Amino acid sequence: MKELDPKWITGFVDGEGCFHVAINKNSKCVTGFQVIPEFTVVQHERDIQILHKIKKYFNCGVIRKNNGNRYCFRVRSVKNIEETIIPFFQKNSLQTVKKIMFQRFVYVLLLIKRKEHLEINGIEKIRKIQSLMNRKLFKK
Amino acid sequence: MKELDPKWITGFVDGEGCFHVAINKNSKCVTGFQVIPEFTVVQHERDIQILHKIKKYFNCGVIRKNNGNRYCFRVRSVKNIEETIIPFFQKNSLQTVKKIMFQRFVYVLLLIKRKEHLEINGIEKIRKIQSLMNRKLFKK
Repeated sequence: MKELDPKWITGFVDGEGCFHVAINKNSKCVTGFQVIPEFTVVQHERDIQILHKIKKYFNCGVIRKNNGNRYCFRVRSVKNIEETIIPFFQKNSLQTVKKIMFQRFVYVLLLIKRKEHLEINGIEKIRKIQSLMNRKLFKK
Repeated sequence: MKELDPKWITGFVDGEGCFHVAINKNSKCVTGFQVIPEFTVVQHERDIQILHKIKKYFNCGVIRKNNGNRYCFRVRSVKNIEETIIPFFQKNSLQTVKKIMFQRFVYVLLLIKRKEHLEINGIEKIRKIQSLMNRKLFKK
């Protein structure tokens, strides 16, 4: 299996990728909320092979069934996002407004690194950034 | 404006591009039908700048308003498709099943080059290939 070209991956992610931050209720967390950053690429099952190639390239993440006959490549581990995903897109610059999504995503990761997500003020800060990353806003 | 990387374009087209053949009724044509091959990339108006960059890269095609607040970069000229678009994607290989769409598209262009689209048998041949390139089939 030939390895993908990093520029190709960047173009594909500009079209099909998503940088997302979920804030879920979780009574086990001090603040009552859990922050989950997520980088995803969703494809129809006919193109599941490309998700496997992307997973192989990044050497992290998982592939899961999504809605209907769609599959999702997903990286949620903060370590993998920090050490692999963010440096990749800092080196290989996105070309669409998805770049702005990515920059906000990087900022949330910085807050997580500073452990601000473990305080209620930090959760509010992340919630504000999250509202500017809303997928629906971007699909208008 | 920095020029786009060809590998980035290929990745973006794997996500967002379309190779399409329209067969429209046209009484001015001997067969009663006109064959229109078309390479398109559609984006929300917020990313219209990327369509201009793609147009600049290929140095052909037009940008037109599509449905709603979406814009389309489109190449319909057989000359430009033959001399620019096809050689580009033959050099920069698509990675998803869109590659199969592209190969069928190339075959239709070959039939047009042989002037088969000017005979009713040729129209039927193209119609068969077209049915295998149906966008709805690919969106299932």
